[in-house]
Amino acid sequence: MKSSAYASGVNRRVLLAAAALLPMPALLRIKPALAQEAGSPLASWNDGAAKQAIIDFTRATTDRTSPKFVPPEERIATFDQDGTLWVEHPMYTFMTYCFERVPILVKAKPGLSDVEPFKAVLSGNREEIAKLSTPELEKILYATLTGMTVEEFKPEVTKWLETARHPRWNRPYTELVYQPMLEVLRFLRANGYKTYIVTGGGQDFARMGSEKAYGIPPEQVVGTASGTKFEYDKDGRPILIKEPKLMLFDDFGGKAEGIHLMIGRRPYAAFGNSTGDQQMLEYTGAGDGARLMMLVLHDDAQREYAYGPAQGLPDTKVGTFTQALYDEAKKNGWTVISMKNDWKRIFAFE
Amino acid sequence: MKSSAYASGVNRRVLLAAAALLPMPALLRIKPALAQEAGSPLASWNDGAAKQAIIDFTRATTDRTSPKFVPPEERIATFDQDGTLWVEHPMYTFMTYCFERVPILVKAKPGLSDVEPFKAVLSGNREEIAKLSTPELEKILYATLTGMTVEEFKPEVTKWLETARHPRWNRPYTELVYQPMLEVLRFLRANGYKTYIVTGGGQDFARMGSEKAYGIPPEQVVGTASGTKFEYDKDGRPILIKEPKLMLFDDFGGKAEGIHLMIGRRPYAAFGNSTGDQQMLEYTGAGDGARLMMLVLHDDAQREYAYGPAQGLPDTKVGTFTQALYDEAKKNGWTVISMKNDWKRIFAFE
Repeated sequence: MKSSAYASGVNRRVLLAAAALLPMPALLRIKPALAQEAGSPLASWNDGAAKQAIIDFTRATTDRTSPKFVPPEERIATFDQDGTLWVEHPMYTFMTYCFERVPILVKAKPGLSDVEPFKAVLSGNREEIAKLSTPELEKILYATLTGMTVEEFKPEVTKWLETARHPRWNRPYTELVYQPMLEVLRFLRANGYKTYIVTGGGQDFARMGSEKAYGIPPEQVVGTASGTKFEYDKDGRPILIKEPKLMLFDDFGGKAEGIHLMIGRRPYAAFGNSTGDQQMLEYTGAGDGARLMMLVLHDDAQREYAYGPAQGLPDTKVGTFTQALYDEAKKNGWTVISMKNDWKRIFAFE
Repeated sequence: MKSSAYASGVNRRVLLAAAALLPMPALLRIKPALAQEAGSPLASWNDGAAKQAIIDFTRATTDRTSPKFVPPEERIATFDQDGTLWVEHPMYTFMTYCFERVPILVKAKPGLSDVEPFKAVLSGNREEIAKLSTPELEKILYATLTGMTVEEFKPEVTKWLETARHPRWNRPYTELVYQPMLEVLRFLRANGYKTYIVTGGGQDFARMGSEKAYGIPPEQVVGTASGTKFEYDKDGRPILIKEPKLMLFDDFGGKAEGIHLMIGRRPYAAFGNSTGDQQMLEYTGAGDGARLMMLVLHDDAQREYAYGPAQGLPDTKVGTFTQALYDEAKKNGWTVISMKNDWKRIFAFE
């Protein structure tokens, strides 16, 4: 069952977090669990600069004798989702959800079938779909992500996450998470870090899959958020309606703004993979003491995808790891993770 | 030191949370700490319906054999701040901060001394100040809470919280927290609940005092929030500027909206004291299973204040516990806490 499985996940996590704070005699009592974690914290990573950067940072900020020690309550690590924690090709997962909702939407409102941009989506014509403008895409997002109560939205997403399949691997999207990044999440949590998703994608959508996919509870997911409106339904029961009104655009500078709004602390570690993550990494890096900034470079066409102009790879519409970002990373001392060279395996199912 | 004291608080809380999830044999090992907490969980409460409601709710939602058992990850409890966790008379504390910032503001921009509403505040004339309109009050809030970086704002508030004194008790505002409510916070946390402040006051302001006053970390404080803007300073360093732009009005229906935005889960318990909290309690109560809704009634002029028309008490400008709210509470089965009758003592220093 979902809830008991998650409860046991929490159990382990809470224990490990507690262990990190315990004085030695108490620590010895629960040594087996800790030793297991410590034995192979980043098993899917090849030895190299990227793996070492994670280990060095964690040691420097959690060792009480270190000049860069960070008190447990301040240990915040933020992760972009699309392209950093899971596959973002051929389209961001939350956008795929919105597109796949269009036929259901049109069934409820048949008049929309002849109206753009819904007509283009229904046609399935990839060229037409690729030509959709930003206002047209927004129309699709608002039509499929808003207008219902938050309680109605949740089961729709849950069902989709259970049944939808990625076209290349024919697996649920929640299985297309990067195993090496799951290990980073667990490793940081075992060392007292609170891990957050900070995504340009829809916040309510991202919150639905985060527990199952990453062990991250909804309250630790920051995303692009539309407002809700408190109302009473016809029976006088209080409801929250999802409104087509942008509250937080959680991308580029908006990621730093979202972090301040939702967390209120500057992260000590931040992970991303595109220009939309640059400001989050800059904001993280502008703090004192040890800070860890990492960018995932998709350079593995065989096991996943290769995109972005850095190292002569082709540019694409999603997850733009531009040459300028690559130069910025080098200038600022951020670590670039090569999927091809740094990761032993990409997915848990491999 | 602040950080180590807080770290030991976390330590204890994490341990207790872990204990709640442990199988029995492991539980026995850390029995002393648990027993201590269980021995006097609500020591400043008189026996009665209010105290019993808290105990019954907590038992029903944390006993695994209970039909109303709530999985640990879903245990969310939300608390209004002003008038629910600390004194709100003669003025909301964050408003007091804003008013006391005005002379400092005028020193930096002398031209403002002849401009309303700043002139009225500087005059100290209580009648004139009481006549300030809502737009004039907003002008004071924006002038004193925005326009600086988030890093510049923090030490200003910290310093004020350390030096400002409440006119009646001549103590720091952070000492004017209600001891019985501190016990509720600790009791719920010891039972695996994540406790949140959900305040109509400024979010950034409330976050500065929450750790010290309540052991609640900033990321668990939801409040009325103005936006920030990501920028670079003259040296190219990334900064977040506090902007005079309302993002979330966290009062009335906005409290339910804020809870969805910042937490994403419906609370199981909610505590308030005024009409601004009604919708939060309604939203909480609309969920399935056991839910706890409580309202603090200020009916103790001797030890604190008495206000609100319920039970024939005078109405005032802040914390309006109206007769309509009182009737609503009775109709919905919410528990009204009488400060006079339910609380053995009000403050820790008594």
